[in-house]
Amino acid sequence: MNFIEKLNMAVEKNRSLVCVGLDTSPELIPPGMSVFDFNKAIIDATADLVCAYKPNLAFYEAQGEKGLEALYRTVQYVPKAIPVIGDAKRGDIGNTSEAYEKALFEQIGFDAATINPYLGFDAVEPFLKNKDKFAFILCRTSNKGAADFQSLLCQYEGKMRPLYEVVALKANQWNTNHNVGLVVGATYPEELKNIRQTHPDMVFLIPGVGAQGGDLKLAVNYGIDKNRRGIVINSSRQIIYASHGTDFALAARRATHTLRDEINKHLTEVRG
Amino acid sequence: MNFIEKLNMAVEKNRSLVCVGLDTSPELIPPGMSVFDFNKAIIDATADLVCAYKPNLAFYEAQGEKGLEALYRTVQYVPKAIPVIGDAKRGDIGNTSEAYEKALFEQIGFDAATINPYLGFDAVEPFLKNKDKFAFILCRTSNKGAADFQSLLCQYEGKMRPLYEVVALKANQWNTNHNVGLVVGATYPEELKNIRQTHPDMVFLIPGVGAQGGDLKLAVNYGIDKNRRGIVINSSRQIIYASHGTDFALAARRATHTLRDEINKHLTEVRG
Repeated sequence: MNFIEKLNMAVEKNRSLVCVGLDTSPELIPPGMSVFDFNKAIIDATADLVCAYKPNLAFYEAQGEKGLEALYRTVQYVPKAIPVIGDAKRGDIGNTSEAYEKALFEQIGFDAATINPYLGFDAVEPFLKNKDKFAFILCRTSNKGAADFQSLLCQYEGKMRPLYEVVALKANQWNTNHNVGLVVGATYPEELKNIRQTHPDMVFLIPGVGAQGGDLKLAVNYGIDKNRRGIVINSSRQIIYASHGTDFALAARRATHTLRDEINKHLTEVRG
Repeated sequence: MNFIEKLNMAVEKNRSLVCVGLDTSPELIPPGMSVFDFNKAIIDATADLVCAYKPNLAFYEAQGEKGLEALYRTVQYVPKAIPVIGDAKRGDIGNTSEAYEKALFEQIGFDAATINPYLGFDAVEPFLKNKDKFAFILCRTSNKGAADFQSLLCQYEGKMRPLYEVVALKANQWNTNHNVGLVVGATYPEELKNIRQTHPDMVFLIPGVGAQGGDLKLAVNYGIDKNRRGIVINSSRQIIYASHGTDFALAARRATHTLRDEINKHLTEVRG
């Protein structure tokens, strides 16, 4: 089963387009609790409400070697029916990207990963060779600095287009194995709308709702494809840190439930 | 002592602009030897001939948890007088880049790291706050696919410039703590020349000589600054895999020696 099949099954079963970002920092979880035990409790509390999980590797690497152990255990703990996206934003020259591909897909066992396009095709290609795995290429990221380069108007095939559009066009060309998607932040709804119009069939990973302030309704309206799918809406801090007390897992469940239902409500409004 | 002071002292003491890339893969080293023991032997054999070491994290991550342990031990083993550059190509939204900064500079203990600029300033900023540490921003990478995006002509401050030039201009603006450099591949000598002309004072990390086929003479000619410095020339595979036999350390020493002397010869020719 490839990533998209697994994703769509989880979307159907849990009636959810929510991805929970497992960006766990030891200093933000209940004292004395291990990162793995925290993640385990979050997963136990939310696994029937999500379509995917997405740990960001930075938070585990920041904890040193024991952080990596917690990451490995977390990915193994996620129920097999729910895909896990490694938010890694890797990308390097060909032989080095091959090593990253091995790290993310074979060693850690992610079903998909986020990839940085700056180095071009040979940096992305190793992540596409296994048709069961999936690469979300950074297109328009959710952060303030995204405009620094991604909004630059570039000459491409005789037209002036913002860089993020060129990235989307190239990513679409690279999608011969049907395993390329795009990262498009909810904080830039017009850009999201624009990219969806040009790429009706690509799957978008959408960060930026919640703590980053992206508009959920616009993200759903502008992001979904004609089959009422094609978006994976990530929330990290708003869910896993919904409470800093011992009731964190229940609070995470409530926050996930609320987000799932809000997305589904917006879906009904759009296509009702 | 900051990175540049440490680098310049190693450059002087060892009369060397060579950085050895410790991109160690278990399947390419003598059977039965550990990755750390291999790196230790390479470091012992070359520490008087280099100005820096540069492990690329991909090769350690590809080995799973034990690879990370080998990386940590390797960085600790490098003599304190020689700076270690973490080739990580990281870059994420602000709070996530902070976590990567902690991972690279505090946990692993690198003196410098390579950073991907695609996400813009807030992705780079966390790596610049500690004035003793240093960030090499990817500008023009050494690989074939580099042209896909880095060569696109972009509108910037009223002029059309290739994206890599805009990255260099922005990186220079971000260099208020004097701890920003650029990655410019030896495989693109004209671009290297161009960037050096615009940025006479920035330090360049230059990959792409050796296995990737970059022209060493042009890299030196076009790369060096007015003080006959400002370049760190990396070679990985050509040095660490100079021999696949048990004489690998001696062969690495010879290859490093040769590269150092060739660079110094080209330096003499340029500025006689």
